[in-house]
Amino acid sequence: MTDSGRTNPARGQGRLGIWLVGARGSVGATTVVGVLAVRARLAPSTGLVSELPEVACAGLPGLDRVVLGGHDLGDESLAKRAERLASGGVLPAGLLPLVAEELAAVDGRLRPGYHRETGEPQAAAVDRLQRDLEEFRAENGLAHVVVVDVASTEAPVPTEALTEGPLVDVEALDRALAAGEAPLPASSAYVLAAYRAGCPVVSFTPSPGPRLPVLEEVARRQGLPWAGSDGKTGETLLKATLAPMFATRALHVGSWASYNMLGGGDGATLADPERAASKLATKARGLEAILGHPVEGPMHIDYVADHGEVKTAVDHVSFEGFLGARMSLQFTWTGYDSALAAPLVVDLARLVLRAREVGETGPLPLGFFFKDPAGSTEHRLSAQWDALVAWCARLGEGA
Amino acid sequence: MTDSGRTNPARGQGRLGIWLVGARGSVGATTVVGVLAVRARLAPSTGLVSELPEVACAGLPGLDRVVLGGHDLGDESLAKRAERLASGGVLPAGLLPLVAEELAAVDGRLRPGYHRETGEPQAAAVDRLQRDLEEFRAENGLAHVVVVDVASTEAPVPTEALTEGPLVDVEALDRALAAGEAPLPASSAYVLAAYRAGCPVVSFTPSPGPRLPVLEEVARRQGLPWAGSDGKTGETLLKATLAPMFATRALHVGSWASYNMLGGGDGATLADPERAASKLATKARGLEAILGHPVEGPMHIDYVADHGEVKTAVDHVSFEGFLGARMSLQFTWTGYDSALAAPLVVDLARLVLRAREVGETGPLPLGFFFKDPAGSTEHRLSAQWDALVAWCARLGEGA
Amino acid sequence: MTDSGRTNPARGQGRLGIWLVGARGSVGATTVVGVLAVRARLAPSTGLVSELPEVACAGLPGLDRVVLGGHDLGDESLAKRAERLASGGVLPAGLLPLVAEELAAVDGRLRPGYHRETGEPQAAAVDRLQRDLEEFRAENGLAHVVVVDVASTEAPVPTEALTEGPLVDVEALDRALAAGEAPLPASSAYVLAAYRAGCPVVSFTPSPGPRLPVLEEVARRQGLPWAGSDGKTGETLLKATLAPMFATRALHVGSWASYNMLGGGDGATLADPERAASKLATKARGLEAILGHPVEGPMHIDYVADHGEVKTAVDHVSFEGFLGARMSLQFTWTGYDSALAAPLVVDLARLVLRAREVGETGPLPLGFFFKDPAGSTEHRLSAQWDALVAWCARLGEGA
Amino acid sequence: MTDSGRTNPARGQGRLGIWLVGARGSVGATTVVGVLAVRARLAPSTGLVSELPEVACAGLPGLDRVVLGGHDLGDESLAKRAERLASGGVLPAGLLPLVAEELAAVDGRLRPGYHRETGEPQAAAVDRLQRDLEEFRAENGLAHVVVVDVASTEAPVPTEALTEGPLVDVEALDRALAAGEAPLPASSAYVLAAYRAGCPVVSFTPSPGPRLPVLEEVARRQGLPWAGSDGKTGETLLKATLAPMFATRALHVGSWASYNMLGGGDGATLADPERAASKLATKARGLEAILGHPVEGPMHIDYVADHGEVKTAVDHVSFEGFLGARMSLQFTWTGYDSALAAPLVVDLARLVLRAREVGETGPLPLGFFFKDPAGSTEHRLSAQWDALVAWCARLGEGA
Repeated sequence: MTDSGRTNPARGQGRLGIWLVGARGSVGATTVVGVLAVRARLAPSTGLVSELPEVACAGLPGLDRVVLGGHDLGDESLAKRAERLASGGVLPAGLLPLVAEELAAVDGRLRPGYHRETGEPQAAAVDRLQRDLEEFRAENGLAHVVVVDVASTEAPVPTEALTEGPLVDVEALDRALAAGEAPLPASSAYVLAAYRAGCPVVSFTPSPGPRLPVLEEVARRQGLPWAGSDGKTGETLLKATLAPMFATRALHVGSWASYNMLGGGDGATLADPERAASKLATKARGLEAILGHPVEGPMHIDYVADHGEVKTAVDHVSFEGFLGARMSLQFTWTGYDSALAAPLVVDLARLVLRAREVGETGPLPLGFFFKDPAGSTEHRLSAQWDALVAWCARLGEGA
Repeated sequence: MTDSGRTNPARGQGRLGIWLVGARGSVGATTVVGVLAVRARLAPSTGLVSELPEVACAGLPGLDRVVLGGHDLGDESLAKRAERLASGGVLPAGLLPLVAEELAAVDGRLRPGYHRETGEPQAAAVDRLQRDLEEFRAENGLAHVVVVDVASTEAPVPTEALTEGPLVDVEALDRALAAGEAPLPASSAYVLAAYRAGCPVVSFTPSPGPRLPVLEEVARRQGLPWAGSDGKTGETLLKATLAPMFATRALHVGSWASYNMLGGGDGATLADPERAASKLATKARGLEAILGHPVEGPMHIDYVADHGEVKTAVDHVSFEGFLGARMSLQFTWTGYDSALAAPLVVDLARLVLRAREVGETGPLPLGFFFKDPAGSTEHRLSAQWDALVAWCARLGEGA
Repeated sequence: MTDSGRTNPARGQGRLGIWLVGARGSVGATTVVGVLAVRARLAPSTGLVSELPEVACAGLPGLDRVVLGGHDLGDESLAKRAERLASGGVLPAGLLPLVAEELAAVDGRLRPGYHRETGEPQAAAVDRLQRDLEEFRAENGLAHVVVVDVASTEAPVPTEALTEGPLVDVEALDRALAAGEAPLPASSAYVLAAYRAGCPVVSFTPSPGPRLPVLEEVARRQGLPWAGSDGKTGETLLKATLAPMFATRALHVGSWASYNMLGGGDGATLADPERAASKLATKARGLEAILGHPVEGPMHIDYVADHGEVKTAVDHVSFEGFLGARMSLQFTWTGYDSALAAPLVVDLARLVLRAREVGETGPLPLGFFFKDPAGSTEHRLSAQWDALVAWCARLGEGA
Repeated sequence: MTDSGRTNPARGQGRLGIWLVGARGSVGATTVVGVLAVRARLAPSTGLVSELPEVACAGLPGLDRVVLGGHDLGDESLAKRAERLASGGVLPAGLLPLVAEELAAVDGRLRPGYHRETGEPQAAAVDRLQRDLEEFRAENGLAHVVVVDVASTEAPVPTEALTEGPLVDVEALDRALAAGEAPLPASSAYVLAAYRAGCPVVSFTPSPGPRLPVLEEVARRQGLPWAGSDGKTGETLLKATLAPMFATRALHVGSWASYNMLGGGDGATLADPERAASKLATKARGLEAILGHPVEGPMHIDYVADHGEVKTAVDHVSFEGFLGARMSLQFTWTGYDSALAAPLVVDLARLVLRAREVGETGPLPLGFFFKDPAGSTEHRLSAQWDALVAWCARLGEGA
């Protein structure tokens, strides 16, 4: 791996901001600790795609240029959250004292988040969130700030809400906000604030966020790049990897059963069937796209508090080969959700900041990172990797 | 899938031969039954890569143009062997009566194989094998014949035998044969006979076969194409698929344990540690090439008679992610060895026949099919697929 | 194994009947074919607990004394169903022609079943079913007939229906039937008919059947033995085996996730959440009883048509050991539902017939076979085995 | 669980010693930390069989009566070793500071071990080891001391060495020692020293230890109880649990493949094929005993340094059911070797000390804990549990 992420001082003309929506959550806290640890050379860059030469060549900003901030609804300190992650096995026990001071500094830059149920008028909330971003940029002298959503998953927006009412176009949205309505899901309110503040956006969750057509239009008008959605960290990563093997070997996948167990906060959220709907929909999409036909198979996401920070995916694939021979592949993927997600958050933030620097706009070709890639129907991991590498090469040439 | 494999009469100007060394084995018999069944539309083309549009576009010969023959040391009829495969679950029970007549016809074209321990002088044996091929071609009016080795695995040739003695060059080999010596392993004797008869070769096993430098030289002098070696049907297929995921996600694979259970004839052969050496060596090669560093991990191939025709691979991958988080992937692949191998044999035979038609020579870019791809260090399945597709497109343009 | 099941002519003073409710289903057909094949020595007695010396010593009736009959709602012939089972891998392909004649004879003894939705008054139906049993007994000169329910699972009876209304006691039930009501679920109507005909009963499903208190009372008044319920053939069998290990090793099971995939008819039935409720309730019961505390864990039964006759259970057990060490056990159980159930049906029929011969009454100590054992709170398989062996020894002494 | 292990002061009339051979190893250090932590109520008694009421009723000594000491060849401090275990996930991170003082005290009681290759005459070594034990007893005022072998596994003694030479009887052994020979493997030298010092012995490893007939004779002459051998903590525990299920269900196990991966010190030792022989032999024994027939199946123990303290067993069981149906069970057991072994060491020490108190002699009925139970051919876990419970009840009555 290159060392560009740490040292590259030549390129570091200015400082850049990463603003985490949901900064105090497991993924948020792991991201913050990770950035601090890797740039202080307290940990290797394992897991950071942006440190691979094929990606780093894009001219990505070094981690030493990065300033972290964020929104959150909770008030548990980052230090406390990090301790819980350490006792859950996600973070190495000895690391936290070494980054405690910087962690406290980041904590000092976090601001209260927004929730639809608090009574705060949505228009006022969007203004407030926008101000938070502008102040963060000004106070820290940042050339650009990317806003990354790592907050809890929200329920999907009903499709009928996209064809009539306040979400049909920018003007209708503005009118509704001005009229004291709350037309946006919280994840999209953050995005609107970001766009108004001139910040590009990464949606790491399946929440609506920047995927509402009306917000795509706002991004277009502002000339901003964005990326999403739903980070691909476990079962779907395996599907994107394995399904092309069946396809190119002309093997017929008859069923693919997918069982997911999650312990942490994300698990509890997804125990809510309405929110799970978001997740399950994006999880199912890729398989059919790769195999070219629908595939039978149960898909469950279960909350198992006992599993703590561990995320386990157990899949059973039944397929047919030559002359109808019945065969199977089973796998079990056991990982720490936050340890899988956090480095991708860092990667995406760096890539989107770089894209902003060189003036890219609209949904970026970052399907490699996402379950539900905006602007692409390609779900095969290797093809997504090839696309990423090609794009990084272009960015590296000054794009 | 296209239908080119069955009907394409326009292109079928001449008949072509597929000659199986080890025709009476599990893979051989499944290949024969499969060709007969698919071209009679008694079975779908599942498992045949050569029926996917990206490959079929190479202008591959239809299966109706193919005549089958082969060598074998045993004398169990193909019908008997096929029955055993049917009762082991590899072949559908009802299929055999429907292809019985054609199966008997193929049986009638099989000739006795060659074994070093029988006392037959190797020079005479090579002559005999060559004559068998020439008669097969003449009697059936075949434009070309491809020889595919699906016989039992042989032990590797000691490396010192490649730098001195009768295998160092073609002239030394000829002298040794003339002197009554038996310098070649059996798999390579078949290849020499094939090359002398003007036949291209596919080595589907890890046996030395065409991989001896002296035989590469013979192929060069004859202007023949060839492909090898060691068909990639199970665990290595999974490794070629999964390892790039770890690599492109910057995850550090710390160990990869590989346990293989095999019941059929191949299993018994591989219980012989000397022969297993061949297999294990080619199995280990790819992982290190893809990950860029050696990976610890036991690798066993065990013969379990009770498993019958089933081949099971159980792998345990331990990897490290962000900030040193320890995670794992386990998988179990359960398949019928012959059902996985046979369609690839058909694919390779068609591809090499097409390459011969258009005048390609030397090792062909067919790493997609092999554990130990001749002429390539690329082991990532998706990259091998891309290379195959590109080559097929060229072949399709008349190459 | 002893040979008592086949030959023991000395003991075979009279013929006995096994009447299968759901005879044309997968389990029913496998049971019939199995009895015919084993007694004709066309198959070994593998899977038959009743052939183990510790159980056979009870003086169980030989299979040559058994006459088979049954009820079913469908009209697919046993031969047809058996063929489908053979092509699904449950029955050996070559067996069916050898038992075809006897199979047809059993087919001739099957009678139309009862379904609540057909409009047939329940009182009339019970009379009809009772007559079927009495005629079966008379026409075949049978000393005793046991009725075994292997039909599709029904939804549970709401608990409030047990405390008021027609199910509270025998008199209320009789009045309701006389009044033209249909107070009983179908499974219980069969049981009432059986008891009225003097037949003992085995409930192999989780349907209410003989478990309604009012029917327990009928059995008591008639002095009949019965056994139930819900045959233990897969995941629960494993739980009954493994959970005591954790308990006696003082290991704390924190969660036990249970994922079941079923392809056959039973799978489709259980895709109906109301019926699945029956199954899931009895599945959960044992674990808590053995471990002494409730255990978190998702439990799903999913219908996967592609799996055909195969039933797969995938379990993930997370447990804590010394000083809080986190450890896990995962298992995958892959079997043919009918092949697992059918021999137990035969075992239970023989055991209950023997119990009837020696005059036992009430729920029999057969928890070894059941997920939800009537009359017992013991769920540990080894303890259930010890109880079975002890009881068989008593039966063998003439009880 | 009862609390007898911690408080029972009424019964604690005297102090008792547990002497660990291999005290500085993973199992040794975990045992020491565990005793200190549980008796200080810093950890629950999870994993301690001796705290279950059915076992505690034997009148087992409370942990507060226990003094710890031991032999070891190494000189890494217990504190250092414990730290490594904590960073490997075996011990909770926060625990060590709380027991540091007591841990240092135990460290101060450890003495240099014995190794055959050091040149120390064996007779002198046995005297030295005996003196260590006697001083430990005297200095700490201990009523009894039990010696538990948790050192690295030794190779088995060739069977011919048992029928002629210095190991044939006590007198020959004494003569050989007096003559300056070293007839005993190290594990047995420790046992001889223990017996001479009047100490009962537990052999937790597959090393020869007390299993040499000549040492059985020494124990007999001294009237001492002993227990062994080879603690049952993983795969064999599962076999002892699962195999009876197949047996009592009359299912025919056709093959049982057993793959073990070990990272810690034990793994490295077992990478030595000679020593692995010891382990593999005892592992294979039980399965055949339970099933009543030999069972095909590879069994490997592989050292995988990358796995650290984790021990993983991956088993694949193929079995045949009714009418020959082919089915399978696969499991993966993932645990910390030391966390599984240490509580059993504590249990065995307490049970053997209690047996010594009440005057039991010879091999004790403790097969529940061992892969290769001395004095018993019973390998079924539940039967071993029943035997343990019955014996504990007798001990509790003052035996």
